[in-house]
Amino acid sequence: MNLIKKNIIVLMGPNLNKIHEKGIYGDETSESIKLQIVSKAEESGISCEVFQSNWEGALIDKIHESKEKADGAIISPGALAHYSYAIRDAISLVKIPFIEVHPENIYAKENFRRHSVLTDVCAGQIVGFGKNSYLLGISALRELI
Amino acid sequence: MNLIKKNIIVLMGPNLNKIHEKGIYGDETSESIKLQIVSKAEESGISCEVFQSNWEGALIDKIHESKEKADGAIISPGALAHYSYAIRDAISLVKIPFIEVHPENIYAKENFRRHSVLTDVCAGQIVGFGKNSYLLGISALRELI
Amino acid sequence: MNLIKKNIIVLMGPNLNKIHEKGIYGDETSESIKLQIVSKAEESGISCEVFQSNWEGALIDKIHESKEKADGAIISPGALAHYSYAIRDAISLVKIPFIEVHPENIYAKENFRRHSVLTDVCAGQIVGFGKNSYLLGISALRELI
Amino acid sequence: MNLIKKNIIVLMGPNLNKIHEKGIYGDETSESIKLQIVSKAEESGISCEVFQSNWEGALIDKIHESKEKADGAIISPGALAHYSYAIRDAISLVKIPFIEVHPENIYAKENFRRHSVLTDVCAGQIVGFGKNSYLLGISALRELI
Amino acid sequence: MNLIKKNIIVLMGPNLNKIHEKGIYGDETSESIKLQIVSKAEESGISCEVFQSNWEGALIDKIHESKEKADGAIISPGALAHYSYAIRDAISLVKIPFIEVHPENIYAKENFRRHSVLTDVCAGQIVGFGKNSYLLGISALRELI
Amino acid sequence: MNLIKKNIIVLMGPNLNKIHEKGIYGDETSESIKLQIVSKAEESGISCEVFQSNWEGALIDKIHESKEKADGAIISPGALAHYSYAIRDAISLVKIPFIEVHPENIYAKENFRRHSVLTDVCAGQIVGFGKNSYLLGISALRELI
Amino acid sequence: MNLIKKNIIVLMGPNLNKIHEKGIYGDETSESIKLQIVSKAEESGISCEVFQSNWEGALIDKIHESKEKADGAIISPGALAHYSYAIRDAISLVKIPFIEVHPENIYAKENFRRHSVLTDVCAGQIVGFGKNSYLLGISALRELI
Amino acid sequence: MNLIKKNIIVLMGPNLNKIHEKGIYGDETSESIKLQIVSKAEESGISCEVFQSNWEGALIDKIHESKEKADGAIISPGALAHYSYAIRDAISLVKIPFIEVHPENIYAKENFRRHSVLTDVCAGQIVGFGKNSYLLGISALRELI
Amino acid sequence: MNLIKKNIIVLMGPNLNKIHEKGIYGDETSESIKLQIVSKAEESGISCEVFQSNWEGALIDKIHESKEKADGAIISPGALAHYSYAIRDAISLVKIPFIEVHPENIYAKENFRRHSVLTDVCAGQIVGFGKNSYLLGISALRELI
Amino acid sequence: MNLIKKNIIVLMGPNLNKIHEKGIYGDETSESIKLQIVSKAEESGISCEVFQSNWEGALIDKIHESKEKADGAIISPGALAHYSYAIRDAISLVKIPFIEVHPENIYAKENFRRHSVLTDVCAGQIVGFGKNSYLLGISALRELI
Amino acid sequence: MNLIKKNIIVLMGPNLNKIHEKGIYGDETSESIKLQIVSKAEESGISCEVFQSNWEGALIDKIHESKEKADGAIISPGALAHYSYAIRDAISLVKIPFIEVHPENIYAKENFRRHSVLTDVCAGQIVGFGKNSYLLGISALRELI
Amino acid sequence: MNLIKKNIIVLMGPNLNKIHEKGIYGDETSESIKLQIVSKAEESGISCEVFQSNWEGALIDKIHESKEKADGAIISPGALAHYSYAIRDAISLVKIPFIEVHPENIYAKENFRRHSVLTDVCAGQIVGFGKNSYLLGISALRELI
Repeated sequence: MNLIKKNIIVLMGPNLNKIHEKGIYGDETSESIKLQIVSKAEESGISCEVFQSNWEGALIDKIHESKEKADGAIISPGALAHYSYAIRDAISLVKIPFIEVHPENIYAKENFRRHSVLTDVCAGQIVGFGKNSYLLGISALRELI
Repeated sequence: MNLIKKNIIVLMGPNLNKIHEKGIYGDETSESIKLQIVSKAEESGISCEVFQSNWEGALIDKIHESKEKADGAIISPGALAHYSYAIRDAISLVKIPFIEVHPENIYAKENFRRHSVLTDVCAGQIVGFGKNSYLLGISALRELI
Repeated sequence: MNLIKKNIIVLMGPNLNKIHEKGIYGDETSESIKLQIVSKAEESGISCEVFQSNWEGALIDKIHESKEKADGAIISPGALAHYSYAIRDAISLVKIPFIEVHPENIYAKENFRRHSVLTDVCAGQIVGFGKNSYLLGISALRELI
Repeated sequence: MNLIKKNIIVLMGPNLNKIHEKGIYGDETSESIKLQIVSKAEESGISCEVFQSNWEGALIDKIHESKEKADGAIISPGALAHYSYAIRDAISLVKIPFIEVHPENIYAKENFRRHSVLTDVCAGQIVGFGKNSYLLGISALRELI
Repeated sequence: MNLIKKNIIVLMGPNLNKIHEKGIYGDETSESIKLQIVSKAEESGISCEVFQSNWEGALIDKIHESKEKADGAIISPGALAHYSYAIRDAISLVKIPFIEVHPENIYAKENFRRHSVLTDVCAGQIVGFGKNSYLLGISALRELI
Repeated sequence: MNLIKKNIIVLMGPNLNKIHEKGIYGDETSESIKLQIVSKAEESGISCEVFQSNWEGALIDKIHESKEKADGAIISPGALAHYSYAIRDAISLVKIPFIEVHPENIYAKENFRRHSVLTDVCAGQIVGFGKNSYLLGISALRELI
Repeated sequence: MNLIKKNIIVLMGPNLNKIHEKGIYGDETSESIKLQIVSKAEESGISCEVFQSNWEGALIDKIHESKEKADGAIISPGALAHYSYAIRDAISLVKIPFIEVHPENIYAKENFRRHSVLTDVCAGQIVGFGKNSYLLGISALRELI
Repeated sequence: MNLIKKNIIVLMGPNLNKIHEKGIYGDETSESIKLQIVSKAEESGISCEVFQSNWEGALIDKIHESKEKADGAIISPGALAHYSYAIRDAISLVKIPFIEVHPENIYAKENFRRHSVLTDVCAGQIVGFGKNSYLLGISALRELI
Repeated sequence: MNLIKKNIIVLMGPNLNKIHEKGIYGDETSESIKLQIVSKAEESGISCEVFQSNWEGALIDKIHESKEKADGAIISPGALAHYSYAIRDAISLVKIPFIEVHPENIYAKENFRRHSVLTDVCAGQIVGFGKNSYLLGISALRELI
Repeated sequence: MNLIKKNIIVLMGPNLNKIHEKGIYGDETSESIKLQIVSKAEESGISCEVFQSNWEGALIDKIHESKEKADGAIISPGALAHYSYAIRDAISLVKIPFIEVHPENIYAKENFRRHSVLTDVCAGQIVGFGKNSYLLGISALRELI
Repeated sequence: MNLIKKNIIVLMGPNLNKIHEKGIYGDETSESIKLQIVSKAEESGISCEVFQSNWEGALIDKIHESKEKADGAIISPGALAHYSYAIRDAISLVKIPFIEVHPENIYAKENFRRHSVLTDVCAGQIVGFGKNSYLLGISALRELI
Repeated sequence: MNLIKKNIIVLMGPNLNKIHEKGIYGDETSESIKLQIVSKAEESGISCEVFQSNWEGALIDKIHESKEKADGAIISPGALAHYSYAIRDAISLVKIPFIEVHPENIYAKENFRRHSVLTDVCAGQIVGFGKNSYLLGISALRELI
């Protein structure tokens, strides 16, 4: 493992800024989860930026940037997982490892959510553990970078 | 019915700012239709904002805002109806009633237009009546809010 | 708009004589809804006949008749929407405008209800507003005839 | 060939009583075509009954009767061809030969018309020759009975 | 179990009045089977009406009636099983238990017979035992009402 | 009917030893149901062995044995119904009649349960009557052997 | 009808030179059927060439020629019906009417035979009447040219 | 969190006893990975049993047992993930939380591996991190029990 | 050909600003390719603007603008080709000719890339020639405007 | 070719111990065929073990063993060919060549038998020659090891 | 076995005259393989003609001839296996046994190669053993004729 | 670029000798287009043979020849694009670059034309520019050889 402090980026796609509206995360808000993510990364000696956007284009630009700025990334793509081949291509271009996470179990919801167009260009996938999906993602990413 | 003046929002998706280019709306332009929508709403004592964008992200942001600002909404999603699961998720998050409208009969055009990913998270759908689809949508929404 | 009083016909398919059994229309019955439909049409200066049958053949005969007797029609086809190509052909033959309505949101129920074989031979579709689907249909039809 | 005069029945399904409305048969009406069918059969020394109904049940009852009354039958099922498995079963039960005819070329119209559920229980199929489809059907049936 | 005598209705769809034509029921006819059904019900102290029709509309009307007249029903829908969503809706409306029966094993015949649109709104299904399918249906229904 | 006492075998597939866990069978357990099956058979003068296994191979071996030991069989295959072509082949090899039963209505649950690979090699199918599915199966089998 | 003698061409595709091998045409051979076709055409005052080939390319060349040499054509494409888009294109290019015939009922055989890629570029289709399919084709073609 | 020591079970399906044969796990063997799993659980104060079998029936029996013996479970089903509806039913019966893990990224391999029949009855899924998939599974399970 | 200097616009979609990352274009970068495109256009006496964006909305806005500013356009849509019906609609609205180009052979990559939703609203398609796809596109467009 | 005597293993799946029940192998039994297989191998100077089981797990264990014990293998998987991805994985793990054989022509039977999940991980396939499929398999394997 | 010397024919379809171009057959050419085929047949006392053509029509003509000239045949259809229903029909007409062989494992290549339209009209199939596929085919055919 | 004069071959499939019949190429005929192709090639210092055939076999033979005679090829396969896997295999065998061209936009016509079986074995594809498709093909090929 490298001595230089590692950097990671955590990307959140559309609607993930409003997860408290879903009423299944108790008191947690998008902001409180972000803090826990950063804190978990810091504990592992990793510097972490969290970036949320409802705009596909903004996410693609950020993925491009990550090549320079990060050693690995976590992406929680929300519904873009199911159709954004443009995000898929962006992940492929940037050669750092990506982990796809979903707070909810996408396989136990509507049928269209069973298929993510990103999965086979990511290193792995963590699905269904609420905010813990992100924290497990950081543990997993730490081993990959 | 509530004494407080109701607010609604009418969202128009990509290309709906250019419908006069289609040559099937006579002298009507996007602007003249907007005026009639607002006027129809005002007649019913409802305050109405019309918002058009060609950008999926802008529409999602606006849907999030509508939770605070509106009692109900009409969405004329244009072609995003057929693939934007992100807009679908935004509508689900915001608990006010949404009505999906299409000026043209999407079921009598190309095959891919027969399927809207938004329909089952909206209260209802009005399709095929030109600018009148919007005006009927306001009548329908008035009963729901 | 023509000075001669317009006539329209409102067709209801199988099981729509029993909608109060569904327990989602409050005190409304098939009969009370019919009255409101006729009354709404009369307000617009339109004469209106409502015809319900559980028999596909009876509906086809009535559609044929409508050519002579009506300037436009509303059809609430019930489950026949999903397989009656014979009703589709009848609507095509009769050159007056038809509007397809469904009191319930057919797109938010069983999968087979997502496809209506009538939609592309009708002028438009109004779905999901309970008895109001019919009343909006009359407003829409008034503009078409 | 038998010395006893043969009897055949020609069945016409929904909307075939209104084909003149289609405007593709010139001056011919449903009635004038019926006369030519009977006349063509008589020329071949065959007695012929023509029966049209928009009601699937009436057609099934008539098919059941044909077992006693006819040596063969022609069925022009209209749109019922595409979904009436009940008519299919009726044809199977009655062991006399049936010929399926369509005045129009069902294979050159909407996609759903490419599949008839009756074809494999009929002896043969004649498609696309306008009223002549019936007359060719009589020639074909004459050879089978 | 209630002291008041129970009533049931046994519905038979298209072509089931002609099953002796199939030559797989020995000397049994539609009539002889009806007698055995009624007799079997009476043995269990249940009063039973048998109704056969080749007309979908007549079957729907009868299902509507059954709500007032019966505690449960058996339906042998024949080929309507494969497409009559209107009968499906009628069964759903009437809240008494329905059992779907087929004298023949529909799963060992043509491919289209593998799918019944009624099965998931019925309590259960009995398939493949000839006339015995009905008699088993009465035993099964007795336990449900 | 033969004077020699008949033998039947009732096979239960994976998870059917734990049906009381489902909480939809009241106080009944796998064991209490087995007793009622044997008792029902004995009432009809039939000797009956009940065999449950979670192992596909054990079920196949037992089906092979049944050729020597039984005059007919009932199989409640559980989830193996949906993929075990090996059990299907075993049933085909053994020429005694098999009846497929399911305590629950497999057609009203997940989509994959709508298709059983065993149905067309069994004489018939009984579905949806809880423990009564087995008892009706014995009545049905008695007529076949 | 024109005073100049009309010419038609009858095309037969692969394996139709060997139909007597099938053992379902009695004593008829490919040659005897050709004679009857020519004779039937001559009776109608039409000159007729019959051309058979097992080579797709030869059939396409002949279709091209038919533009100069014939007023209409009958094609019995054999198995090429199911995949030869090249023959389809050739028929489209040549603007004379084509009738597709099949001696056997292609809809009552293997599943792949249910779909002909030629049907929608032909005027009509005659299927299932053995050698009579050709003779009926000539009657039908006479009316079209 | 409960004071009583928790127990978990880790199930491994067919071929997972031979993963060193794949040549993608370096020096790790099935045995060395088991030790790390147990050790990781113990660090969290959880007692852990690891059970591998190539036999579906043995896995089902073990899942049934887990109801008594464990507070939660991890299942690495191998190829059974893609067809064992029997294992799915077993997991559903046992009401403790299950986590599905796969050492390899099943979404980046053959097409049939994209679909697991277990996913929607498990709490979550962790895919693609080699032996680390198990260790992350333990972290995730610790939060759920 | 017109004497007035023609204008064209070349649109590049998501990730096309990073093609040098793919390592299959040698020393070429997105910038160097842009220069060659403009230069090639200028050689033909055509004025050319190149516009790249990772944002679907920005591309739609630019397509709308092109109606005023250009006589024709080339679009290299990247992955948006496979789902952006909104871009498709924008191209349809603007009545100038569009040519779809892809530097890589989209038909020799992942399966989802075989289908472009834009192709049938463009005049033609050029695929697989690297940067040369753009230059050929300019030659092709020159003939169309 | 190696001087050391080669070893092969012949695996037979479910129901292949009962093939004489099918009545299409004359006097041959599972045992007599095994003897001919061993004898044919010995003639080629190859030592051969034949192993049959109705249990998928037993077959997987045996495949694992074959890595140590054999230079190549023949598998006659019976119906497991159509769903056992676990056997597929076992074959892939063991790096010796496998040949898939079927005594019957699986492509001329039920539709589900047309697809084997094992074929692409085996070296080749021999289908349809009865017991001779095994003997040809030994000839083929001799050339591969 | 008959005393008269048997004759067989070995047919090779398109591109099989150029297999040495594939670079996977070592020094073997189409010609050297033909010699080995004839020699292998002669060893078995069978006279053998090998015929290769890139023309579907030539292959059909040869299959027709084989009826007179051969007792059995081997066909290595190349890519025609996947679409030539005309060759399928030719094989069906000729009542001698045909064996389909492929030098390469068609099931381990592109997806479209998994389906041969010839397989169910041939006696058996041998796939994946290079030139040995032909030699095994001769062994197999010797047993059938 | 090489000093030796390059040779290319331009292949045209079925019906492309009759494109003037389509009435969409103005005064151009197959012959006049051939001249322009040769002339365009000569301008680039490339020697060019144009070969048209309606016979798949002739095209395959020519493709085989091209290996010796040409440095690259253009193929305008006509309808063979949609099913001739034999031509696909021929192109794969010959290791020179092929470019697939279509004068018409195959993606804006019948559905079956959207899929070419040749595309992924060609270097690129040019579609929709009339005769210019060929000329652009020559420009593209010049860069590849």
